Amino acid sequence: MAERKIRMGMIGGGPGSFIGAVHRMAANLDGEIELVSGCFSSDPAKSKKTGRELFLPALRVHSSYKDMIRIEKNLPELEKMDFVSIVTPNYLHFDPAKMALENGFHVLIDKPITMTVREAKQLKEVAEKNNRLICLTHTYSGYPMIKQARQMLAKELLGAIRKIIVEYPQGWLSTAIEETDNKQATWRTNPKKTGVAGAMGDIGTHAFHLAEYVSGLQVTKICADLNTVVKGRKLDDDGNVLLQFNNGANGVLIATQIAAGEDNNIRIRIYGEKGGMEWQQDDANSLQVKWLHKPMEIYKTGAAYLSLAAKHNTRIPPGHPEGYLEAFANHYRNFALTIKALTSHKKTKPEWLDFPSIDEGIRGMAFIENVVASAKTKEKWFQFKV
Amino acid sequence: MAERKIRMGMIGGGPGSFIGAVHRMAANLDGEIELVSGCFSSDPAKSKKTGRELFLPALRVHSSYKDMIRIEKNLPELEKMDFVSIVTPNYLHFDPAKMALENGFHVLIDKPITMTVREAKQLKEVAEKNNRLICLTHTYSGYPMIKQARQMLAKELLGAIRKIIVEYPQGWLSTAIEETDNKQATWRTNPKKTGVAGAMGDIGTHAFHLAEYVSGLQVTKICADLNTVVKGRKLDDDGNVLLQFNNGANGVLIATQIAAGEDNNIRIRIYGEKGGMEWQQDDANSLQVKWLHKPMEIYKTGAAYLSLAAKHNTRIPPGHPEGYLEAFANHYRNFALTIKALTSHKKTKPEWLDFPSIDEGIRGMAFIENVVASAKTKEKWFQFKV
Amino acid sequence: MAERKIRMGMIGGGPGSFIGAVHRMAANLDGEIELVSGCFSSDPAKSKKTGRELFLPALRVHSSYKDMIRIEKNLPELEKMDFVSIVTPNYLHFDPAKMALENGFHVLIDKPITMTVREAKQLKEVAEKNNRLICLTHTYSGYPMIKQARQMLAKELLGAIRKIIVEYPQGWLSTAIEETDNKQATWRTNPKKTGVAGAMGDIGTHAFHLAEYVSGLQVTKICADLNTVVKGRKLDDDGNVLLQFNNGANGVLIATQIAAGEDNNIRIRIYGEKGGMEWQQDDANSLQVKWLHKPMEIYKTGAAYLSLAAKHNTRIPPGHPEGYLEAFANHYRNFALTIKALTSHKKTKPEWLDFPSIDEGIRGMAFIENVVASAKTKEKWFQFKV
Amino acid sequence: MAERKIRMGMIGGGPGSFIGAVHRMAANLDGEIELVSGCFSSDPAKSKKTGRELFLPALRVHSSYKDMIRIEKNLPELEKMDFVSIVTPNYLHFDPAKMALENGFHVLIDKPITMTVREAKQLKEVAEKNNRLICLTHTYSGYPMIKQARQMLAKELLGAIRKIIVEYPQGWLSTAIEETDNKQATWRTNPKKTGVAGAMGDIGTHAFHLAEYVSGLQVTKICADLNTVVKGRKLDDDGNVLLQFNNGANGVLIATQIAAGEDNNIRIRIYGEKGGMEWQQDDANSLQVKWLHKPMEIYKTGAAYLSLAAKHNTRIPPGHPEGYLEAFANHYRNFALTIKALTSHKKTKPEWLDFPSIDEGIRGMAFIENVVASAKTKEKWFQFKV
Repeated sequence: MAERKIRMGMIGGGPGSFIGAVHRMAANLDGEIELVSGCFSSDPAKSKKTGRELFLPALRVHSSYKDMIRIEKNLPELEKMDFVSIVTPNYLHFDPAKMALENGFHVLIDKPITMTVREAKQLKEVAEKNNRLICLTHTYSGYPMIKQARQMLAKELLGAIRKIIVEYPQGWLSTAIEETDNKQATWRTNPKKTGVAGAMGDIGTHAFHLAEYVSGLQVTKICADLNTVVKGRKLDDDGNVLLQFNNGANGVLIATQIAAGEDNNIRIRIYGEKGGMEWQQDDANSLQVKWLHKPMEIYKTGAAYLSLAAKHNTRIPPGHPEGYLEAFANHYRNFALTIKALTSHKKTKPEWLDFPSIDEGIRGMAFIENVVASAKTKEKWFQFKV
Repeated sequence: MAERKIRMGMIGGGPGSFIGAVHRMAANLDGEIELVSGCFSSDPAKSKKTGRELFLPALRVHSSYKDMIRIEKNLPELEKMDFVSIVTPNYLHFDPAKMALENGFHVLIDKPITMTVREAKQLKEVAEKNNRLICLTHTYSGYPMIKQARQMLAKELLGAIRKIIVEYPQGWLSTAIEETDNKQATWRTNPKKTGVAGAMGDIGTHAFHLAEYVSGLQVTKICADLNTVVKGRKLDDDGNVLLQFNNGANGVLIATQIAAGEDNNIRIRIYGEKGGMEWQQDDANSLQVKWLHKPMEIYKTGAAYLSLAAKHNTRIPPGHPEGYLEAFANHYRNFALTIKALTSHKKTKPEWLDFPSIDEGIRGMAFIENVVASAKTKEKWFQFKV
Repeated sequence: MAERKIRMGMIGGGPGSFIGAVHRMAANLDGEIELVSGCFSSDPAKSKKTGRELFLPALRVHSSYKDMIRIEKNLPELEKMDFVSIVTPNYLHFDPAKMALENGFHVLIDKPITMTVREAKQLKEVAEKNNRLICLTHTYSGYPMIKQARQMLAKELLGAIRKIIVEYPQGWLSTAIEETDNKQATWRTNPKKTGVAGAMGDIGTHAFHLAEYVSGLQVTKICADLNTVVKGRKLDDDGNVLLQFNNGANGVLIATQIAAGEDNNIRIRIYGEKGGMEWQQDDANSLQVKWLHKPMEIYKTGAAYLSLAAKHNTRIPPGHPEGYLEAFANHYRNFALTIKALTSHKKTKPEWLDFPSIDEGIRGMAFIENVVASAKTKEKWFQFKV
Repeated sequence: MAERKIRMGMIGGGPGSFIGAVHRMAANLDGEIELVSGCFSSDPAKSKKTGRELFLPALRVHSSYKDMIRIEKNLPELEKMDFVSIVTPNYLHFDPAKMALENGFHVLIDKPITMTVREAKQLKEVAEKNNRLICLTHTYSGYPMIKQARQMLAKELLGAIRKIIVEYPQGWLSTAIEETDNKQATWRTNPKKTGVAGAMGDIGTHAFHLAEYVSGLQVTKICADLNTVVKGRKLDDDGNVLLQFNNGANGVLIATQIAAGEDNNIRIRIYGEKGGMEWQQDDANSLQVKWLHKPMEIYKTGAAYLSLAAKHNTRIPPGHPEGYLEAFANHYRNFALTIKALTSHKKTKPEWLDFPSIDEGIRGMAFIENVVASAKTKEKWFQFKV
């Protein structure tokens, strides 16, 4: 493959979108991906407006994703997009993703991947059939210190894992702001647009993914307490879940959007036989490693002593903080590099070139369905089914 | 009552004891309590040795608590002890406490108060009948910033409380050190000496007390997952508990002694309608107050803007850190001042002159019994019974 | 001006460069700047290699900056670059900058701006004569919480400023790594390439700029103690400087590259009559505001209560950490927007659209010259001359 | 010597005293020191009031320190005090200390030890002549993590020391509160009562002592900038001092009482060839050890891996924070144990049994005199003379 940028189309991300802009900055950062087309809104005026602001040629801006995919498909190999980035609300993930895959495009989707496990499994089939890749942007597994933790745990530096505590506290839904014109709140609290879970779908899935990604373990049983704290809201805005993992470890997952005063400090602690680890987004460039009989160590992003995966997902030297956009960009970069490798028929994949994909998407959807089911039963332990 | 020090006897706290020395330092700090007698061990040599080290006259040192109480009882009013401090392992709390109360002595006991709820209730009866006071040393409610939090929450500065997360992670029982000669580990993992719960009794009760004390709420339902992580151990060394409170708030309580690498960082977060609060022992002189629409505030021990209760339980100006012993000493001081007030027939009691007592002891024992029962059922929610 | 991206050329930033890649990421992030040409190295093979990696057309890649400027100048208005980004070692700043300005290009330069005050003043003249803009990438004034601090101080929320402590500790030059093949260390310790100061030029200038930017004050007198700690090194690698400001405030500036174990935690504290402020890069999204009689407040990036300047230099909501690259990108974005406004003959400039420019460059060079001169005298106070 | 408590008399510490109460709590904590007599005020009513509150027999309470020393001297060996604790304002240190030493009593004095170097040297002579001990309560060298740092540095674990930054920022004198009835402020800003320096005497001496104690080095040259920020004040309330040490290391000492918003966060950083250390009182139970090529380590009070000196100056297990009073009590305990050892003619002294004494007192007074002299000269470097 000639040296060229990987070409991206975008579905969603028009005026008022939060995550669309994040995706674009993440794609821009490394200069290896180029936005070439978009359907930013089903409202033609809005889509055009965003297209212009992004300096796209008018012919590459659409108000129907179907048109977009169809037109892109027929462009010459040297012009058409390589993958599509889907940043719409959840209920608008499955259809465009499926169509894109079927028409030969790789797909990047914001989480949660679909509205149901069934849809997610279907996407997997379609992707495999068409030999296309899927990337799911669970931001937090993109952080270099999370990569570091994963590699250290995989090497059993802490011995067998015994306990995992993961929490994702937000406070922005502490009042019924979905009744104002807050677009972000409105769709996220609407079951038709967001799915069967509220906080658990929006941020619980992030916490769940982080726990499984870091530990390399899988949840096998859960016991969920979901709450709708703000009156009149239709979905959970808060929840606490007890966990069991496939190696016998236990855990706790807390996800809430009514923790007034909290911003977005997702945090995980893992304890093994020999020590523990702690990471939180508010101090994202540090990984605390706590030992049973030695002083705690603080690993820092960019340091020479880090693992390969941490280093390759870092851009600047230690002491120059990287943040949320860089973590997000890691998924984009690793996805683009993998597309490139696929196109070049490279077979081996370096350890650090990972990104969440369809399997993580299926497990995320399973988390949503299982946690809602568990919350409804009177039984304590609910078998986690996929 | 003439100005004199309050006189204390001690049961337990001989060679190898950890908490006995803590109690003595706490009692010493303010110079208002005097150790006058003791039964530090049932082994006469050990009791004498400790007595000598503490500069006690030989006649006030005993190897039977029964002798000690009997002899003290018959001393002249101006010489005999006012209260007895019981710092033995749990199974040796009830009998000496009961006998001391019946013989006219006030009683201070380390937590958990007894082996069963039944015993705790009995102590309450005996104390009331004899018009004697009981102080239960739940250290963490002695911290000035916890007093501050309680007063702010009582004034509803955060609105109605919605969620409480309390955790007490320790790592010292990560391996089977009870099989070595570690005296502290040995009795704490022995059901005959410690009671029906391990970690939940030893530190879960602290977390439970802290949650109820700070919030002014009561737990009404629980869902417990207790684990014995280290093989061969007879009791729980780890557990996660979902909570419901009497105002509808939900919560999570985590207490573990196998979180390798953790020392003793008990931590609580409370969220209300308007904001949240966070306190942790590792930064004990700070109280984080997080607001929904304003910058987070950090309240500091000793500051002029604090509540009465915080100020009266502080000894030095802001920026001079106070710690665990000072928190412990607050209970001793408030208990001694209350004994003095009782003796002087004072009737009103200032708001700040509080300490955990028999009612907190009963609830703590109920926590232990309920959490063990809940852990055994397959039902999710277990009604908290006292 | 039609909606299009601002076009950038780059001088420097070839293989082995650290800061070149940083500049490109900063320019990429917001998708408003396009790299269109470059002279990445005077070695043609290296320049070409970098050009290819950056997907540039071969005809826009040069190995002489003179060729590059000449050729770009003659391109049609719709193709040629708008500004040139100069990311070479210090001794290669002045000539290309001067030539670019004279040929009608705006110029962005990494700090310190030149080798001498004289050169910097000359650049100012040339820029004014040609009506071109200069941007100097003092990263740290690009952080949103620094913008916030500046606005709060300008409004005198802390009263008159009394004391400023600014420090920039690094440890990477703790040993003589310039004697290995460390390219970064080699030129930075070579007076011919870096100028008359070592640590003071490389990072002291950042600290100096930060102090003046945040406070709105100017240094008037200094007392410098410069040290060469690692034997054989030709320039200072460490220094402590006492400061006096034009309003009577005093201060301390510490810049060192031999603080073994430190990464890059630039930190500033400003004290006024009513309170103090503290910011450090390791916790870049927080601004501590300490009050004389109230609890300390923590302002957080992205919050709704922040100043206009802080908000406009932020991309994502509170709790999503932004870091070094985002701060860097703020200068690029504000520079690009100002170029755009200039082209559109807009006259008013919003408060938040600021970036360090030639005047800051002159003061930075003056700092270097004054600090070196002060270090040589036996007199305590040295009048700061520009 | 029979097992008995060490007996203390106190001079100063009457109503309104801050430090008197601190001394008494520090002496009380370990139960090894007994307050037996006092002259708490030269006002008989006040002295009596305090004596009663401290439960002292009336005959042991005086309103003249001369009477007190005379009377104590003539008491039987088994009753009289062993040492006197002098907690008066600075100008009332020398006379009672001298008289106490001459009459056979050991002496503990709050810092700074006297009003002049001359007086301090005289005390040394008197103490030596009478074979009596002096303890000077520089609180901060009593912290266990400071002991740990000292031992690690003495073993050259960081290699040769290159740089020391010590700072002591307070804000309580940000306004002219000495013009109100604030007793603490009034004497501390009055040259007749406090000596030739203000902030430098009150807290600068602490910082100076800490730097020399931790590093084992001595200051040889200084360059001082002292300021009187609050109008009308007679002494310095703020200052910055450049330092040179006897091994060639450089340093900075900052002491200020007008850093509005700061409480009492004394902090020290030491850099050697291989790494750095950082300790601050706000996080007193942690010692940060930063390595050039390894992750930073956090040493914690009470941990098993600590040095002997750290362990012996700690009372409780890791995770149970100790604070200012415990650090203070360490000096008292070590002083009392040394008195005991002296009485028992023990000759070897364990490494951990240290406390600041007369030599540290002389250097502290020299610091005050040198820093004031340096501030007055126009020369940069001032030779530190003792």
